[in-house]
Amino acid sequence: MSAKKLLEGVRVANVGVALFAESLAAQNAPVVQVDWRPPAGGDPKMIERLDSLAACDAANDAAIERLQAAKPVWVDVGVAIEEVPGMGERTLLHAGPPITWERMSGPLKGAMIGAALLEGWAQDAEAAEKLCASGEISFEPCHHHAAVGPMAGVVSPSMPVSIIENRAPDELGGGGRACCTLNEGLGKVLRYGAYSEDVLARLRWMAEELAPALRAALRAMPDGLDIKNVIARALQMGDEAHNRNVAATSTVARTLIPYLAEAVNDTKVISRVAEFLAGNDHFFLNLAMPAAKASLDTMAGVKGCSLVYTMSRNGTDFGVRVAGLGDAWFTAPAKNPVGLFFPGYSQEDANPDIGDSAIMETLGVGGFAMAAAPAIVEFVGGSTAEAFQATNEMYGITWARSRDYTLPILDFAGVPMGVDVRKVIETGIHPVINTGIAHREPGVGQIGAGVLRAPEAPFQKAFEALVEKMSG
Amino acid sequence: MSAKKLLEGVRVANVGVALFAESLAAQNAPVVQVDWRPPAGGDPKMIERLDSLAACDAANDAAIERLQAAKPVWVDVGVAIEEVPGMGERTLLHAGPPITWERMSGPLKGAMIGAALLEGWAQDAEAAEKLCASGEISFEPCHHHAAVGPMAGVVSPSMPVSIIENRAPDELGGGGRACCTLNEGLGKVLRYGAYSEDVLARLRWMAEELAPALRAALRAMPDGLDIKNVIARALQMGDEAHNRNVAATSTVARTLIPYLAEAVNDTKVISRVAEFLAGNDHFFLNLAMPAAKASLDTMAGVKGCSLVYTMSRNGTDFGVRVAGLGDAWFTAPAKNPVGLFFPGYSQEDANPDIGDSAIMETLGVGGFAMAAAPAIVEFVGGSTAEAFQATNEMYGITWARSRDYTLPILDFAGVPMGVDVRKVIETGIHPVINTGIAHREPGVGQIGAGVLRAPEAPFQKAFEALVEKMSG
Repeated sequence: MSAKKLLEGVRVANVGVALFAESLAAQNAPVVQVDWRPPAGGDPKMIERLDSLAACDAANDAAIERLQAAKPVWVDVGVAIEEVPGMGERTLLHAGPPITWERMSGPLKGAMIGAALLEGWAQDAEAAEKLCASGEISFEPCHHHAAVGPMAGVVSPSMPVSIIENRAPDELGGGGRACCTLNEGLGKVLRYGAYSEDVLARLRWMAEELAPALRAALRAMPDGLDIKNVIARALQMGDEAHNRNVAATSTVARTLIPYLAEAVNDTKVISRVAEFLAGNDHFFLNLAMPAAKASLDTMAGVKGCSLVYTMSRNGTDFGVRVAGLGDAWFTAPAKNPVGLFFPGYSQEDANPDIGDSAIMETLGVGGFAMAAAPAIVEFVGGSTAEAFQATNEMYGITWARSRDYTLPILDFAGVPMGVDVRKVIETGIHPVINTGIAHREPGVGQIGAGVLRAPEAPFQKAFEALVEKMSG
Repeated sequence: MSAKKLLEGVRVANVGVALFAESLAAQNAPVVQVDWRPPAGGDPKMIERLDSLAACDAANDAAIERLQAAKPVWVDVGVAIEEVPGMGERTLLHAGPPITWERMSGPLKGAMIGAALLEGWAQDAEAAEKLCASGEISFEPCHHHAAVGPMAGVVSPSMPVSIIENRAPDELGGGGRACCTLNEGLGKVLRYGAYSEDVLARLRWMAEELAPALRAALRAMPDGLDIKNVIARALQMGDEAHNRNVAATSTVARTLIPYLAEAVNDTKVISRVAEFLAGNDHFFLNLAMPAAKASLDTMAGVKGCSLVYTMSRNGTDFGVRVAGLGDAWFTAPAKNPVGLFFPGYSQEDANPDIGDSAIMETLGVGGFAMAAAPAIVEFVGGSTAEAFQATNEMYGITWARSRDYTLPILDFAGVPMGVDVRKVIETGIHPVINTGIAHREPGVGQIGAGVLRAPEAPFQKAFEALVEKMSG
């Protein structure tokens, strides 16, 4: 792609405001104009390097076909030690790029302590912390084990996990799987670093009653539960599939429960499971995330592809992986999300950005699909106009529009899909990410929700690596 | 209200496009201008008469407080003969203003024939038709019996009905109730005039298994199911609460099923009921309609009030009732809806507008809240921009904005609420109504969905009556 073509990419952002333009035309007002910026800040060397990556275009076209074709389906619920590839008996998975115990932030440490307690590896928090610091536990990224996890993203061996399978044709990367734990709800929960006895008791109930019931219901369904379809429908229903999941969760509950009632011969269990689903608007997030991963991982390793297939944070570092650069992580310090806080908490209590959930933005939803979910602004702060602006900007750094995930309010335009590291560098526009906010101390939990921009440095590093690789 | 004040009302329509204005300002574009029209087409006599109704203002303020305060709750499910006030053993209720058998349209006749068969009053359609024509059956409007019904709106004595109670304070008209049958689903259904054996079999199952199960679940809930809350949430989720009810139905299912599982000791029944709710996106419509009626009826009889509390159609006539004019109907021939048709059907097959469901527009949702539901355009035809335009226009003929039913996409502006007959006459803007489309022959059923404008004549007649009453 030449720098000239990149400029066209920026101009495409206008199409995102088609609705406004149309409305205005109907009211005899002049048509909207979007500001023009010089590519790469006008730096001639950078423009030259952008031109050197023109060969990425064809690779991106091929990779995006795989992403478009992905068909993630919820096929089963199992136990992590059996279902997560490469999961060891003393392994704890975490969100984001690799990190040592010493560099972990408070909520990530809290989640690891909680997981050690849940597994019975230690009798109290102090002992669990000592064990974690001893080197006896292997801490590894979810993303290295075909898994993802929101916030701390902890997966321990006994935890139940949902299994999402990509039912695309083989030649388009189908057949891959991704796992994720079951969502616990909001507030004082393990993934935000809380580990009190009520947190652990809920996790035990989820493993003993919820997971087997969901497994039975799923196995009673003839073809599993089509997550792509649910995400697509939810975007028509005010969800952006990251911080707002109420429509998707309702859709899943409504679809699943007839099978649950058929498969589980105990009305009390049915009632408790139905009540859990009714009380947890974010249940769907832990299905959407592995669906996004199973979709995006099909692009990994496509030679010369400049599209991002992972964005993730461990609470200390923000990491990016690019399809044409294999498994390599490009990282920089995680930023602090800005947002709305629960009573009693404020910006100073916020931990830096954490969680694998930016996989949703990597797919083109979440912050990228804010225009689908103006109601989200009540949850993360900001105005409806800003929600539109966020989506419109993202068209400037993505390679395609989704064929299946569409935005009714933009006359059913596809969401901006496939972040191109070249376009990020060229435009200076950084991916927008919706997120929950964890307290920076271990043991507290969620304190708010907000929005932030990805740091530029990981994209710059990836861009340099890509220039080097493509010239080599 | 003076004609000058009415003009201000028209100008308020600008506020509805706040989002556009804000977005444009952010992009340095000039601010939106809306066309100005002379009041009442510039007719000085009409302006004088509009001025003579200035005293309505205070009455409208008082009436709208009742509408704002209404708190409709789904409290029970019972049988029509026991729960519908004044329901006789040989009564069939129908949608819209009063009508004789001879003047009924095809689908309304079809529904009456089906109801007679369901009640066992006749052994076949021919005998049922003869009975209906004999004068032995009393045909009465739902609206005269604290009830409403979508499309044909037929209520027969043995049918199960939901009961909605307005839990507003007594001094604001609280305590009123309204009934509605349970929604059968889409396609070949009684309310669209179909009466084949499968239609009747489904209705029998609904009476024998579904209704008792729902009753048990509702009675297990401590305070019933808050329908106002569900409508408000659904407007944040892409429903407009008339032709699109998928989010609301999912919300109701998700809320109700834990209680269902608790109250019904038979997993097979739970599974069938959950499956019925999962398969019928319009289940909620038959809860929203009596909720709207219980809310609007609080305005009936408020002296000097120029706000409409009923808009309804029987498939032949379109009727309007105005709060300050008591029970009187003002009617005109029903128009033909324009929309999208199921394969094999076209505009010529369409019956004129039918159903009590325009109660949703009377409340300020449905066609009035199209901006909440851009996805609706896939179902009724039209573009996203037209959806916005519809809502914006309705601000020009309504007295207030709802405090509880809001539109996220318009920066949480309240829906246009309280159609003022004066404003309809003054502006020449007619209420927009979303609707299903029935085949004009009895026995066929639904053939599409669409949108139309209310005819002007009923509003003109009501306006004349109001001028006369207020000058008397």
